[in-house]
Amino acid sequence: MAFQIPRGTQDILPGEAEKWQLIEAKARDICRRYNYKEIRTPIFEQTELFARGVGDTTDIVQKEMYEFKDRGGRSLTLRPEGTAPVVRSYVAEKMHGWVEQPVKLYYTGPMFRYERPQSGRMRQFVQFGVEALGSADPAVDAEVMALAMDIYKELGLKQVCLVINSLGDTASRNAHREALTAHFSPRIDEFCEDCQTRLHKNPLRILDCKKDRDHELISTAPSILDYLNDESVAYFDEVKRYLDDMAIDYTVDSSLVRGLDYYNNTAFEIMLEGEGFGAITTLAGGGRYNGLVEDIGGPETPGIGFAMSFERLLMALDVQGIQLSDEAPLDAYITAIGDEAKAVVPKLLHELRASGVAADTDYTGKKMKAQMKAANRQGAKIVLLIGDEELKDNQVTLKDMKTGDQQLVSLDQAPAKTSAWLKGE
Amino acid sequence: MAFQIPRGTQDILPGEAEKWQLIEAKARDICRRYNYKEIRTPIFEQTELFARGVGDTTDIVQKEMYEFKDRGGRSLTLRPEGTAPVVRSYVAEKMHGWVEQPVKLYYTGPMFRYERPQSGRMRQFVQFGVEALGSADPAVDAEVMALAMDIYKELGLKQVCLVINSLGDTASRNAHREALTAHFSPRIDEFCEDCQTRLHKNPLRILDCKKDRDHELISTAPSILDYLNDESVAYFDEVKRYLDDMAIDYTVDSSLVRGLDYYNNTAFEIMLEGEGFGAITTLAGGGRYNGLVEDIGGPETPGIGFAMSFERLLMALDVQGIQLSDEAPLDAYITAIGDEAKAVVPKLLHELRASGVAADTDYTGKKMKAQMKAANRQGAKIVLLIGDEELKDNQVTLKDMKTGDQQLVSLDQAPAKTSAWLKGE
Repeated sequence: MAFQIPRGTQDILPGEAEKWQLIEAKARDICRRYNYKEIRTPIFEQTELFARGVGDTTDIVQKEMYEFKDRGGRSLTLRPEGTAPVVRSYVAEKMHGWVEQPVKLYYTGPMFRYERPQSGRMRQFVQFGVEALGSADPAVDAEVMALAMDIYKELGLKQVCLVINSLGDTASRNAHREALTAHFSPRIDEFCEDCQTRLHKNPLRILDCKKDRDHELISTAPSILDYLNDESVAYFDEVKRYLDDMAIDYTVDSSLVRGLDYYNNTAFEIMLEGEGFGAITTLAGGGRYNGLVEDIGGPETPGIGFAMSFERLLMALDVQGIQLSDEAPLDAYITAIGDEAKAVVPKLLHELRASGVAADTDYTGKKMKAQMKAANRQGAKIVLLIGDEELKDNQVTLKDMKTGDQQLVSLDQAPAKTSAWLKGE
Repeated sequence: MAFQIPRGTQDILPGEAEKWQLIEAKARDICRRYNYKEIRTPIFEQTELFARGVGDTTDIVQKEMYEFKDRGGRSLTLRPEGTAPVVRSYVAEKMHGWVEQPVKLYYTGPMFRYERPQSGRMRQFVQFGVEALGSADPAVDAEVMALAMDIYKELGLKQVCLVINSLGDTASRNAHREALTAHFSPRIDEFCEDCQTRLHKNPLRILDCKKDRDHELISTAPSILDYLNDESVAYFDEVKRYLDDMAIDYTVDSSLVRGLDYYNNTAFEIMLEGEGFGAITTLAGGGRYNGLVEDIGGPETPGIGFAMSFERLLMALDVQGIQLSDEAPLDAYITAIGDEAKAVVPKLLHELRASGVAADTDYTGKKMKAQMKAANRQGAKIVLLIGDEELKDNQVTLKDMKTGDQQLVSLDQAPAKTSAWLKGE
């Protein structure tokens, strides 16, 4: 009996894994330049952390969590997102007391949401994200957006569009909230059950409802931008000016409401324009969350961050025909025929590898011709041939597969000579 | 209210995360040289996979699995180890038909076992491992051990000891099994309940029991080495000869029994000698499992692999005082005083980063002196100063923090000049 892979998950196989390595290395290098440091949190957390940190009116918490009890009866949940765990760690480790402020962190890893699997939406998926905690400077908002955009740009992705909005400060949000409640209340019975709950808990989320998106009251709903107070307007203006300075294009969309409860001021999404991949064109999303650290038990601390899906990034690169990398070719391949010749291979192979050469040999008893084919298929630059003739004098024939040049060298000298040839010496 | 991190898990924070990056990069580079390719499997699998692939007489399956039901009622388990998932993928993807054989794979990632947390034993821990599937050549056994040893060696770890054993082929194992049953049967009531079950299911595992390890019948038990048939002896001899050829020291220990049911022929562990870290000195373990692929629904396929704990590797490096790396220092830091000066920073910072420079600035309204201190603390090689004087003429002062050299350049030219200085031009 063969076993199925769990629904909504995937194996990343050789050929594909190298692409993941490349985008991870790119994200890591950009974080180095932006001075964001890596943090790694556990795969699961106390369930209550997400109810608090993500918001219990969200679909994530209400419908999509992988929740389970451990053998000690504790309720744990596979993390559906990365921000709440990072903030949990920020509070526990008292990072507000660290000497470098803001604390600038990044993470990469698997996240889990129990959704109907579809193209670009897996139950296990990988998110890369950053969080900058401890500064309310609008320049940090611009920095975080620039960092996200740089990843797409440096990987060569085109038609990437930054969409921004301001949700305002607490006063602005409250004013807007009242206007929304007044707007929806008279006809709330025309909306879905979830929206009826949202009306009282967080009416902003009605604008984000998948079921009621076409209701006429959605398009006529009061815009947050009309309720921003002077401070919020000034803040938003500054963010926009910095983006202009950095020559980063953006669109303001007042209907942009992030699915999470804790955002304020800046909210943004990065979209793929044009022919995307099905209905899903959102590559990344983020925003400012000045209340979250307090909600999770820490001191009042401003914060901003984003998360991007690496699956969608790879799909977008694929849609645009951008080739990331082939598998790395071999440097050297040892061919040997007969038990005596094969017996000297492991030592030679080990020496080659110790000197930095990517090398392999045949472990399946292939004939010479098939061994040469394998060497070619794997792009070996140099083949080391060990036949009866060579073995007699403890020698090996080095063959440059590009030029066809051959040279007979002693077994002892073969690793050094191979290295030298590979360096073009 | 602050949230606790789940018991037996840890956050890896900046400062520590860089060490993880370094050992992962080392393992990856060694795999490149040995021609092993990365595979990534999901965090959870069908529970039954581990019962089958790990063995239902093992502690792992009986006591330590994080098992849960998803919202569809399926029983899933957070992976306790990496081999069964890789083999599940091997079978599903029909890798036995791939053109390059054996299929040589590696993986890194979190694993989960519900154990009593102690030093070197976490409930979530990271394993790196390799699997070579499709060759029964003893040279592959030696290659896999060499790969594991190279990781420790190249990271500078000392007193690393390779312990090997042979469990023989099926015929040898059966003969040994009968001898073990005869040996333990008369006095099996002196052993723990688990061992009483093991007597019939897999008496070899009695030798591995933590509770009964001091029972006199353990030390007098028949040795597998006395039951190896000629073929198994020849196989083991060949493995040892290759290790000798590669100048890899090893010890043969006939009591070495791996905790998993599916091993045959070669079994090995890598231990830290001398003062380790508490009772735990096993760094890695592996062996040959020629029956596993069939058990998991695939064609008869020889396989060998190992897994190592990265937590224990880091602990071992720490015990031996081996410093892996400091956090990467900054290349450049921009200091600016006043709103006007601060307003030009984001653009300059963005240009520096776009040209590959690791750069940062102050986002918390520090005074000039404190900004210079921050630059120094983070090892900035160059400071870019923007004061009133500079701003007037759209200029910036570049200061080499090592030599103290200063130069006034235009804002436009600052990124190129900074890059040039960093390259020593």
